[in-house]
Amino acid sequence: MAAEIVNSKDGLGEDVIDPAFALHRGGKMAVQATVPVRNADDLSLAYTPGVAKVCSAIADQPELVDDYTWKSQVVAVVTDGSAVLGLGDIGPEASLPVMEGKAILFKQFGGVDAVPIALDCRETDEIVETVARLAPSFGGVNLEDISAPRCFEIEAKLKERLDVPVFHDDQHGTAIVTLAALRNAAKLSGRGLGELRAVISGAGAAGVAIARILVEAGIGDVTVCDRKGVVAAAREDLTDIKRELAGFTNKAGLTGSLEDAMDGADVFIGVSGGTVPEPAVARMAEGAFIFAMANPNPEIHPDVAKKYASVVATGRSDYPNQINNVLAFPGVFAGALQVRATDITEGMKLAAAEALAAVVADELSADKVIPSPFDERVAPAVTSAVAAAARAEGIARR
Amino acid sequence: MAAEIVNSKDGLGEDVIDPAFALHRGGKMAVQATVPVRNADDLSLAYTPGVAKVCSAIADQPELVDDYTWKSQVVAVVTDGSAVLGLGDIGPEASLPVMEGKAILFKQFGGVDAVPIALDCRETDEIVETVARLAPSFGGVNLEDISAPRCFEIEAKLKERLDVPVFHDDQHGTAIVTLAALRNAAKLSGRGLGELRAVISGAGAAGVAIARILVEAGIGDVTVCDRKGVVAAAREDLTDIKRELAGFTNKAGLTGSLEDAMDGADVFIGVSGGTVPEPAVARMAEGAFIFAMANPNPEIHPDVAKKYASVVATGRSDYPNQINNVLAFPGVFAGALQVRATDITEGMKLAAAEALAAVVADELSADKVIPSPFDERVAPAVTSAVAAAARAEGIARR
Repeated sequence: MAAEIVNSKDGLGEDVIDPAFALHRGGKMAVQATVPVRNADDLSLAYTPGVAKVCSAIADQPELVDDYTWKSQVVAVVTDGSAVLGLGDIGPEASLPVMEGKAILFKQFGGVDAVPIALDCRETDEIVETVARLAPSFGGVNLEDISAPRCFEIEAKLKERLDVPVFHDDQHGTAIVTLAALRNAAKLSGRGLGELRAVISGAGAAGVAIARILVEAGIGDVTVCDRKGVVAAAREDLTDIKRELAGFTNKAGLTGSLEDAMDGADVFIGVSGGTVPEPAVARMAEGAFIFAMANPNPEIHPDVAKKYASVVATGRSDYPNQINNVLAFPGVFAGALQVRATDITEGMKLAAAEALAAVVADELSADKVIPSPFDERVAPAVTSAVAAAARAEGIARR
Repeated sequence: MAAEIVNSKDGLGEDVIDPAFALHRGGKMAVQATVPVRNADDLSLAYTPGVAKVCSAIADQPELVDDYTWKSQVVAVVTDGSAVLGLGDIGPEASLPVMEGKAILFKQFGGVDAVPIALDCRETDEIVETVARLAPSFGGVNLEDISAPRCFEIEAKLKERLDVPVFHDDQHGTAIVTLAALRNAAKLSGRGLGELRAVISGAGAAGVAIARILVEAGIGDVTVCDRKGVVAAAREDLTDIKRELAGFTNKAGLTGSLEDAMDGADVFIGVSGGTVPEPAVARMAEGAFIFAMANPNPEIHPDVAKKYASVVATGRSDYPNQINNVLAFPGVFAGALQVRATDITEGMKLAAAEALAAVVADELSADKVIPSPFDERVAPAVTSAVAAAARAEGIARR
């Protein structure tokens, strides 16, 4: 890696070695004016003196800020760089390429403007306070790549404090897409969610949120495992969030290892990394669903999973059924912003998952329980469903 | 005003009454991707997995963030909404139309991306800390419409703390353009700056910065007046910043009122509002320069000023010689960002003023001591001069 960069800086090999560097040169995004500023007349409307009337109107009627500025269509993509992709804690500057990538996906897939905000602070309260101070400028906050367990508290406090949607994508984006795939896998095999017992490997941001949405969606039982095995109430080493998790999962009262929990399970959901030994996979229930989402190395290789499961999904684009957050977050925010929702609720997430699943409901197969990220029906479907759910819950402001 | 809004919201008169509201509907700016995201190959370069290499490279060599993200070309336009235009303290949300306007002027005139950041906090240290936390995401900070005297301390602390350019436009943008106009007025009348005695009415953000740049540029003497008259060391009611001002201005040791100070003065610079009585104008030196910049009502009406002065400038677009900050800030930031300067120094500001004056040096007249905001030579000239000055001072990083 370093060699490529040094070469490019020396002018010896201008980014020829890796196309990712060539593409990233100069960044991936820009700002553009959506009104003309070509002459004095334009300037007198878009800036002084014309702008003063608009400012005064907003000062008198604060809700007009949503009509007469870009606030209601722009999302802050906020990180502290503490849990970036599989790279971990690389800090705010190094996280920027991911945040910019996220921002352009927001635009491309949801028509939502987004601005990368990588913060140079780490304390939960510092991040909450900083984002709260920024809030007048943004119509929503997408939290990104903030490490667990801080991410839970940060999101909860911001949701409490702000009157705009706050959404930690590593949690809820993943959860929505996972539930959508699971709905369709169940439909394909003629089973109800209530009949299924799922095991989630990983109790970080994604694992916790997936457990929550599956329980809300009415799955039969879900057991979450961390590195020490089943997250069960009897354990004395649980963090607050895992204790909470133990309270609403694992009805079966399982204890022991991940492999113990997988014995006879209908669904495996991997959001942990690591590798599950093949014999444990073999002991799952007949016709199981295996969603091994670690990137780039799934917890269970798809070729192995195929031997025992009826539906296999991964996080990779080179296998069928990619569980990709881009299927959710653009439409979720587009829907929330469209109706100026004051929050993104559990009901809106469930509606997003249902709409996402429905996109391919008539073309289901074991290799297509979830649409492609480039399926153009996805974002409009999710947007409508989320907007309708917000209206139904009475949290839409228009 | 309220009537227009209510009408438009009722669907009875959709923004027909005032074109400023029609133009502002939906905001004035958007984000755009500058790389394609049309298919899985694009996605694998701009986002995962390709982006991970770029992140890792920046983690290894932090300065690469400037090459491979938009950071080095994007400026945060930061306000707390405490001193917006002539409207005063209207708060962060109501200030957003101005900040968006500023952002699109940055883009249109300087090719610089800019993002409005209106902060919901007021304490000097809160603002400083918040902007410092945001700094990893931005290549520069343009402070805007923050009330005096907090603006001085906020700027000073941020310049100390950050390694990117920080510039309070209400101070330095105005100062640069004023100096440029004054240079050309002096040239036109065949006088050196050292021969001139100037009186500044107003000791807020603009007045303090203008006094400073005029002294640095070598003006003969400058006397600043606030509402109580000449800012002189003998006064016991001075704030810290005015005490400092008294230390480097008013060599003549004047005391008394603004009108006293104007007696025999060569230059009047108004950045205060209020009205100067005509007899005081009449007592200025022969061939005086009058820059009455209050908007919309100049301290001295241009028609009155014309009777006594050889050069008259205002802040208005409907009279000759408009002192408009847009002549400075886009080029100042474009130049600083071009060479990745770590600061915007006094030398860079002086260079900007000189370059701006030089644009119309060969076409000078009493009605043209400063270029039009739409003169396309302006931004490139300022950009080059600022970049060269940064290099000469050794604060350019490339």
